[in-house]
Amino acid sequence: MSDSPFVPQMFAYDSTLRDGAQAQGISFSVEDKLKIVQRLDQLGISYIEAGNPGSNPKDMEFFQRIGELKLKHARIIAFGSTRKVKAAVESDNNLRSLLAANTPAVAIFGKSWDYQVTDILRTTLEENLAMIADTIAFLKGHGKEVVFDAEHFFDGYKANADYAMQSLQAAASAGADALCLCDTNGGTFSSEIHAITAAVVARFPKVQIGIHCHNDSEMAVANSVAAVQAGARQVQGTINGIGERCGNANLCAIIPNVQLKLGLPCIPPESMATLTSTARYVSEIANATFNEKAAYVGNDAFAHKGGMHIDAVTKNPISYEHINPELVGNARHILVSEVAGRSALLARMHRVDPTLGKDSDETKLVLEKLKELEHEGYQFETAESSFQLLVRKLLGKHQPFFDLHEYKVNIHEPALNRMNSSVTIKISVDGQQEITAAEGDGPVNALDKAVRRALERFYPAIKDIKLTDYKVRVLDSDQASAAKVRVLIESRDQFEGWTTIGVSTDIIDASWRALIDSIEYKLVRDQERQALTA
Amino acid sequence: MSDSPFVPQMFAYDSTLRDGAQAQGISFSVEDKLKIVQRLDQLGISYIEAGNPGSNPKDMEFFQRIGELKLKHARIIAFGSTRKVKAAVESDNNLRSLLAANTPAVAIFGKSWDYQVTDILRTTLEENLAMIADTIAFLKGHGKEVVFDAEHFFDGYKANADYAMQSLQAAASAGADALCLCDTNGGTFSSEIHAITAAVVARFPKVQIGIHCHNDSEMAVANSVAAVQAGARQVQGTINGIGERCGNANLCAIIPNVQLKLGLPCIPPESMATLTSTARYVSEIANATFNEKAAYVGNDAFAHKGGMHIDAVTKNPISYEHINPELVGNARHILVSEVAGRSALLARMHRVDPTLGKDSDETKLVLEKLKELEHEGYQFETAESSFQLLVRKLLGKHQPFFDLHEYKVNIHEPALNRMNSSVTIKISVDGQQEITAAEGDGPVNALDKAVRRALERFYPAIKDIKLTDYKVRVLDSDQASAAKVRVLIESRDQFEGWTTIGVSTDIIDASWRALIDSIEYKLVRDQERQALTA
Repeated sequence: MSDSPFVPQMFAYDSTLRDGAQAQGISFSVEDKLKIVQRLDQLGISYIEAGNPGSNPKDMEFFQRIGELKLKHARIIAFGSTRKVKAAVESDNNLRSLLAANTPAVAIFGKSWDYQVTDILRTTLEENLAMIADTIAFLKGHGKEVVFDAEHFFDGYKANADYAMQSLQAAASAGADALCLCDTNGGTFSSEIHAITAAVVARFPKVQIGIHCHNDSEMAVANSVAAVQAGARQVQGTINGIGERCGNANLCAIIPNVQLKLGLPCIPPESMATLTSTARYVSEIANATFNEKAAYVGNDAFAHKGGMHIDAVTKNPISYEHINPELVGNARHILVSEVAGRSALLARMHRVDPTLGKDSDETKLVLEKLKELEHEGYQFETAESSFQLLVRKLLGKHQPFFDLHEYKVNIHEPALNRMNSSVTIKISVDGQQEITAAEGDGPVNALDKAVRRALERFYPAIKDIKLTDYKVRVLDSDQASAAKVRVLIESRDQFEGWTTIGVSTDIIDASWRALIDSIEYKLVRDQERQALTA
Repeated sequence: MSDSPFVPQMFAYDSTLRDGAQAQGISFSVEDKLKIVQRLDQLGISYIEAGNPGSNPKDMEFFQRIGELKLKHARIIAFGSTRKVKAAVESDNNLRSLLAANTPAVAIFGKSWDYQVTDILRTTLEENLAMIADTIAFLKGHGKEVVFDAEHFFDGYKANADYAMQSLQAAASAGADALCLCDTNGGTFSSEIHAITAAVVARFPKVQIGIHCHNDSEMAVANSVAAVQAGARQVQGTINGIGERCGNANLCAIIPNVQLKLGLPCIPPESMATLTSTARYVSEIANATFNEKAAYVGNDAFAHKGGMHIDAVTKNPISYEHINPELVGNARHILVSEVAGRSALLARMHRVDPTLGKDSDETKLVLEKLKELEHEGYQFETAESSFQLLVRKLLGKHQPFFDLHEYKVNIHEPALNRMNSSVTIKISVDGQQEITAAEGDGPVNALDKAVRRALERFYPAIKDIKLTDYKVRVLDSDQASAAKVRVLIESRDQFEGWTTIGVSTDIIDASWRALIDSIEYKLVRDQERQALTA
């Protein structure tokens, strides 16, 4: 599986694509999932629980395609449940799907709380133990690595410790490779997690013990760490803690807590500095608002506002920083325009011109323009493509693809038909004029259609652009209807995805800027691809 | 101070207005602060650390006005630091401001980490102890209740336990009423917090021990709870955990954790059900995005998505809920239209018609319409005024103030002048037509101006409306330029503030709906006020 010499001492087990996908508003396409798997593998995650083939048949395509990926670190896990009450494992559809997913490892959840067996599952305590044992023995017989997820383990242990332990014993005797203790409802305190995990570790010294926490008491990270301190060596969680209700345990905080502070390596040391960018990448794909206050990876995590704090941090960072932010690929906020900021910027500028130096006039020019634009409300962290275009323009390397002469937007209420907005646009390309018009469901939609129609005659490749996301944020909202807005547009073609930005007090103008950057970026990239193959 | 018989066993100490206000993007006006103080007092918070009069002179007006409030539970605390190195307490400007704030209690922070004394403060270890002792003795001499905040206590204890304890001893000997242990950098683990707090409690059995955590390792809530388990009886934190970097410890999770699970009352039992609305209220005033995944108080905290979970929760809520959501004034999400949801709804409908019954046809009608609108993307939790108008309309109690015949929006790029948008609008009031036009910086701004101009002739009071906030959220962002958007508008007049909502695929239309609700709500409220005084 892995040709890397790195051996983790704690196994990071990511469930972003399975338990994380249970969160409200989260929905991953097959493409999204494949991208996330690759990124998590690059980070050095040990296990990726990628889906539940039994409950989600459309995952099957994904499991087929995942088999084709060459992964460096991660083992892929398909997730399912124990066999049905009083049924045979051989004829269980869920288990059949699990095998069909063809992963090296599987995770099986089963009941360990007596009340859940008798009142929810409505069967006997003995039958539940048989369900666990039969299922695991069956999967071991098919050569799988098997993780047993003991659902509601801590609530179960507090209600009936003996039965909870029996459920683990049934799994261990049937050959389970790991026993994972789940705080399914997220209500358990760290002190209890520590004590109960320690009891399990003492009882099963030869089996890997895992921990799976939820954040309903805002203690999932501390609970996971407490379990590791008690001897657990597999930690389940999700990137950014996404998940049902209040979320799952957040691997982006657990991994640095365990690796940097407890000294137990989870991911290759050289990957730790990609943690911040990985967190942001997954958040973007999940179309979730990134928590800028997130521990370790948020933009504010090492930002200093109080004057006294800034002074002390300048004297010595340990005054107000618990770790060096560069360890996790983050940066001190007050130093964003200083040395560290400039190196990062230079790396991005090198994609346009690899010869640029750290102190060259061009670098200074970009830095200054960037500051000015950020002050206006631009934010290029997530809009790399607009940044690349900006650098090209500032370095004199950009040839505009068209000239805009004018556009006019008309909105009519009541609408004359379902489309209440119309746009007239006049552009020219190499002296050839084109005037056209389009109707839309709202002015942005009409403008989008009109500009594409006008340009397609000259650049047929524009047809391949698909706008996949459109986000609006009001910046200075106390300015009410005259407030400044920031528009982010995500686009795709058959090759890649890209994000562009526009800022203006006028939402139509902000959208226009992001739209034009999207089209120009596509055309620039096409030229680059042609140059490569020419 | 308090005429309530409630005696807390753990003192909740809120620093939203002091340490919370250090967060990026947070800025409270005097009015904001007074509103938050009153709301926290209603919740039953024991101490409210309201500001730092020495570092922020404009806080003085606030401290004067706060003296006039009648509070039921809370003691107000002014925050400051120990006297300067080698200076006299009597002539210290910071201490003079603290006394001038005229609060019953003060909090003083001082150094307890030897390295901070020698390398940041750059003085001797003895002088630092004298600074602590002198300052506290001085304030006790002026009759103040004094909390000593031992900055960096845990880092200090790990570096030099003896000196850290000496700093507490200096404060205790000088008469400090409470010793608060601060994890200033937020990097300490729960196990360490527990052990060190227990050592302090054993050393100072007669002084109240406090805990002040930051969330840099995403463990602030668990750390605070661990300190309480070790004997701390004062917990400092902020509402929603707002604060510098990754935030302060979140009182909205700590209070229910400690009160409902450890059985130590912090706030009056009858106040616990207002926790969710308090969290939302403070978030609105702070103009922060509310975290819907927040433990206990978030909208998703008791939301169930997985079919299996819903089934089990329906059989018995403890299957997937760690507490009954009603205890903290929250609700199970799948049951929003059931009994609990209906009672809350009825309370809001009673503001329009106090005679409505729980099972009346009108209630059912509102419930159904609400479901339909929420499905479309409306969210009335924060737009109470639009909800009130909706109820009035559905109950036939609303007389429209005007008829819209049409509006036309024209946007021209390049702009003919700085104002690129113009609007023509035609309305009528009681058969009298008015047609007018306005230019604006963007179409929403132009529309806002035009409709006000058209209506002011009939309703001069519209001049008093000030739009104070404008927010846009894209709902189904994968629909790109045809996505649905939700607009929230906040307005004020001389009497009050109100919030209205509009949803549409067209941002102009969504803004129009929110704008019109804002104007109509103002006119309805004016009528109500006239009826009262008539």
